[in-house]
Amino acid sequence: MTPSQSVSTSDGLETVLDNATAAATRLAATSPAEIGGLLRAVASELDAHTEELVPLARRESHLPEGRLRGELVRTTFQLRLFAETVEEGAHLKATIDSPDPEWPTGARPDLRRTLLPLGPVLVFAASNFPFAFSVAGGDTASALAAGCPVVVKAHPGHPELSRRTAEIVTGALAEAGAPDGTFALLEGNEPARAALLDERVRAGAFTGSNSGGRALFDLASSRESPIPFYAEMGSVNPAFVTPEAAAGRGAEIARGYLDSYTLGVGQFCTKPGLLLVPASAAQRFRDVLIPEVEQRAPAPMLNEGIETAFHDTLGSLRNHPAVETLVSGRRTEDGVGPSLLYTGARQLVDNRQELAGECFGPVSLLVGYSDTDELLEAAGVFSGELTATVHGNEEESVVAPLFRTLRARAGRLVWNGWPTGVSVSHGMQHGGPYPATTAPTHTSVGTAAIDRFLRPVSFQSAPRAVLPEALRDGNPLGIPRRVNGRMESPEQG
Amino acid sequence: MTPSQSVSTSDGLETVLDNATAAATRLAATSPAEIGGLLRAVASELDAHTEELVPLARRESHLPEGRLRGELVRTTFQLRLFAETVEEGAHLKATIDSPDPEWPTGARPDLRRTLLPLGPVLVFAASNFPFAFSVAGGDTASALAAGCPVVVKAHPGHPELSRRTAEIVTGALAEAGAPDGTFALLEGNEPARAALLDERVRAGAFTGSNSGGRALFDLASSRESPIPFYAEMGSVNPAFVTPEAAAGRGAEIARGYLDSYTLGVGQFCTKPGLLLVPASAAQRFRDVLIPEVEQRAPAPMLNEGIETAFHDTLGSLRNHPAVETLVSGRRTEDGVGPSLLYTGARQLVDNRQELAGECFGPVSLLVGYSDTDELLEAAGVFSGELTATVHGNEEESVVAPLFRTLRARAGRLVWNGWPTGVSVSHGMQHGGPYPATTAPTHTSVGTAAIDRFLRPVSFQSAPRAVLPEALRDGNPLGIPRRVNGRMESPEQG
Repeated sequence: MTPSQSVSTSDGLETVLDNATAAATRLAATSPAEIGGLLRAVASELDAHTEELVPLARRESHLPEGRLRGELVRTTFQLRLFAETVEEGAHLKATIDSPDPEWPTGARPDLRRTLLPLGPVLVFAASNFPFAFSVAGGDTASALAAGCPVVVKAHPGHPELSRRTAEIVTGALAEAGAPDGTFALLEGNEPARAALLDERVRAGAFTGSNSGGRALFDLASSRESPIPFYAEMGSVNPAFVTPEAAAGRGAEIARGYLDSYTLGVGQFCTKPGLLLVPASAAQRFRDVLIPEVEQRAPAPMLNEGIETAFHDTLGSLRNHPAVETLVSGRRTEDGVGPSLLYTGARQLVDNRQELAGECFGPVSLLVGYSDTDELLEAAGVFSGELTATVHGNEEESVVAPLFRTLRARAGRLVWNGWPTGVSVSHGMQHGGPYPATTAPTHTSVGTAAIDRFLRPVSFQSAPRAVLPEALRDGNPLGIPRRVNGRMESPEQG
Repeated sequence: MTPSQSVSTSDGLETVLDNATAAATRLAATSPAEIGGLLRAVASELDAHTEELVPLARRESHLPEGRLRGELVRTTFQLRLFAETVEEGAHLKATIDSPDPEWPTGARPDLRRTLLPLGPVLVFAASNFPFAFSVAGGDTASALAAGCPVVVKAHPGHPELSRRTAEIVTGALAEAGAPDGTFALLEGNEPARAALLDERVRAGAFTGSNSGGRALFDLASSRESPIPFYAEMGSVNPAFVTPEAAAGRGAEIARGYLDSYTLGVGQFCTKPGLLLVPASAAQRFRDVLIPEVEQRAPAPMLNEGIETAFHDTLGSLRNHPAVETLVSGRRTEDGVGPSLLYTGARQLVDNRQELAGECFGPVSLLVGYSDTDELLEAAGVFSGELTATVHGNEEESVVAPLFRTLRARAGRLVWNGWPTGVSVSHGMQHGGPYPATTAPTHTSVGTAAIDRFLRPVSFQSAPRAVLPEALRDGNPLGIPRRVNGRMESPEQG
């Protein structure tokens, strides 16, 4: 018996969830060092299978080899960074209050608080990052790092890669001593839906479309016992070019924009879907962009479903009376070429429902604004975005109000750069208010993603033997702890 | 114009929410020291009005004066403790990653992450703590501490106290320089429901019944833009007495239990609703408890609605064929006397739906278990509890498995003590899996309660002028920050 199973029927699901429940109890008693070891073991085995996995991913996703190699590096780096984070132990937020008979709210008992794993987590894999947001991607890594068993719903866009990745993860976990049931793969919507509604599943995570994420969030919230459901659902990622930036370096910005919105055939949730430029400079942007967009070679999209949805949404945009088509992307045997559209900021504001939504694929909407008031008004159209980007000069007076408007609406604000390329790091925020996500207080990328799967528990006057190690006298784990309100770093910290 | 309004119509609601939205922008740019000042100002003004507020609370809640004075002290202490927490600044989780061209996921830009306020918060006040969980209670304090404007739905159980408290909070905030719209009071279900569904409200918090909390959670989740809704909905708070503890100090435990379950006329969400004792010792517990329960004087409940609901639930329990009534609480002009019921652990397990639910008021269920296997089985009946309590001796073999079972189910585990009396402290956890709350990853008491109303934002390569002070070079706020993965304490820390 290995610690994983791949299941595509509701019959098999019973065993998967029973095993995950048993594993949850064992993992909850596992030390941070052991959890770190499991993550590192998975990373090593994935690395060791690079030459097998990359071609498999290439066949099923149509993404270029270089990109896939980089994505696998990112995936295993992520597992190791999370291992480091878990070993350091700050994520447990261990807090100790000593007894204090004089405490103003009444004699304070010995109170010790730490975070414990939530229990089995159901992860819905994405199609556009077959490694980094799929079977062994960020959600899986962060749930495992929290000490939660993981059940992954495979994305049908890369079934063979999903199975093979699951086998490798399974083998690595077994070899490293993880309990049975730590990891399992589900295929098909029926068992995934049943799992999401099952009491044994204690949290869900999803990366994908708005309609998919919202439907699953609604299911998770409608349970007899609702559970946290972290859906990351994509974004328009508006980018704004100030008058001075447009005047000073418009051509360079235009080329950066084109590279960013066509990266991965436009199939990034951080793709800049809109670029707002001064109307007075719009002609220059068009002059630079149109020939370059036309020259870009068509490339295959991830799968037929995504391509169909792209052309549907693109068609609606192009048919909108306020939208002018600057470049109509070619459709050839090799795939889809990028498109470029144009509208005015006034039209964007007035038609926000139709024009300020995500179109997943290689298209973006150039938008001309008449003055900075209109620019700020347009920035206020957005309600929840993963990112917002500003190209400007520091001294321009519009910069401060623009950032104030955007920081209330987006999870990451990019200055003189592009939002595609999400660094896996401590300071990363990949999230935002709805509709970017269903959980504005969290991130799905970066070390803080682990927090989503932890639950606080306080122990009041509890004897040493029942305390988690994180809370014991003498700090046996050597982790940072808050003691009587003050942070204490371990000796070796 | 003051920074507060009291509104009981949907017309007035428009202004309240517009003002709260404007205040949100201004508060988001307010320094931690200023936020701390606002909290301290509210605390001082409430303290200064003790002699007016306590009699008002006494009249409307029927709670004894000593308890109400203590509760007001707790409420203002809470505001000051949150001020301290905000001033220290660790709650912002400021994180800085320097640019790193060698970063394994690709050249890392300058990334700086902090937490920003979510925006206007709607707080539903509770009836059973007219100070600590009402207009200026824990939810209000933590939302203000996060920098969020607060709109409180007054509990109809203490309308005059709510209005007067709101006036005092309003006046204190205005005096201390808070923006207009920082605080407002709503009365009535209609405007509260409209507010919860309004896009301008960005989070909700609630303390009260399961049915009320769930209905509001469902509304918040069903919005076009769902928002976090933190409902704390009470709990059974089972308590377990091991064989040795029962044999060695059964009478003392029985008396502690009686004091705890009758505290505040049983109207605490942490009331121990069940006490599991060895069946062999049950007769001795009955002998000690019955005369003492009978002697307790009747006391008035908070209001008629709660009293009616109590008698309904109590009646159902008493009519259950597995339940024996040991003491039937008197109903006199002075109020309600405590009741005591009895059943066996086998019956509890077999009738968990009917017997293992909360009955808010002065009653508890004594439960006899035949052996420690049955004790552990009974402990597994619970799915989400604010607290679970164990009376035992450290060396007993049942203690470790009992804690393992309970820590997966409850937010706070109490050893040889009682769950009533929730310390406002760093290490407190007041929360738990559903049905104790709708947000298992959070607490509604203690300094960590502030986290509920904060949202992470990363700034990528952003110029100094648009960075929040928490993220600027040189650490002008003097707060703890994580820089390139390592915690840095400020000089003055």
